[in-house]
Amino acid sequence: MQDDWLDKVKWARNGLVPVVAQEAGSGRVLTVAWMNREALARTVETGEAHYWSRSRGRLWRKGEQSGHVQRVLELRLDCDADVVLLAVEQEGGIACHTGRERCFFRKLEEGEWVTTDPVLRDPALIYGKK
Amino acid sequence: MQDDWLDKVKWARNGLVPVVAQEAGSGRVLTVAWMNREALARTVETGEAHYWSRSRGRLWRKGEQSGHVQRVLELRLDCDADVVLLAVEQEGGIACHTGRERCFFRKLEEGEWVTTDPVLRDPALIYGKK
Repeated sequence: MQDDWLDKVKWARNGLVPVVAQEAGSGRVLTVAWMNREALARTVETGEAHYWSRSRGRLWRKGEQSGHVQRVLELRLDCDADVVLLAVEQEGGIACHTGRERCFFRKLEEGEWVTTDPVLRDPALIYGKK
Repeated sequence: MQDDWLDKVKWARNGLVPVVAQEAGSGRVLTVAWMNREALARTVETGEAHYWSRSRGRLWRKGEQSGHVQRVLELRLDCDADVVLLAVEQEGGIACHTGRERCFFRKLEEGEWVTTDPVLRDPALIYGKK
């Protein structure tokens, strides 16, 4: 596989770029996560979103535990080549670890971040904890 | 103005968070830029997107030079409180400094980033250079 396209990405000093995942159908912005070179390569190879988990310090196939895989329909790169945009199909309709459709479930209303989106599935069920 | 909502944002060590600006009507993701605390405060006060320019090292009102202001209809915060999502109306229909609607004008096709979006207005005209 030719890697020119990977070289075109301007990785930050920590080797990462931010990645926006947008639901292809609705246009909803689901998540923003981070990729390193390997995560982006695997995303394209497999057609499923892979990220770099900064908290866990490891590569992470989105949905590996939850089953909430993101099938990638389109990848885009911005003008500065330092942000990636994915159009995805979100398996299960749940992208957020809180059991909500998207991570952006809070909206600023009169000086407060108000939760506007319901929990669709209890995270304890998603992640199999008691 | 109460600042609790600003304190809820988890600013990175460099004092910034990434901000996704999405066109409210079409759902198009236009830009990803960065805000510091002041930029976010001013965005809410004025209803127009303000960012922190990392390259210029200063606060920047989007459109201050180009006229391509972003009117902010909605602000959202993600589950980790470290990414902001804006729903905006993009003045002039041009968000990118290249004169295109959006910064994400390149798409990955068979191992190449292919430019898919036209230049709507010559940047030399937008920025008044010869």
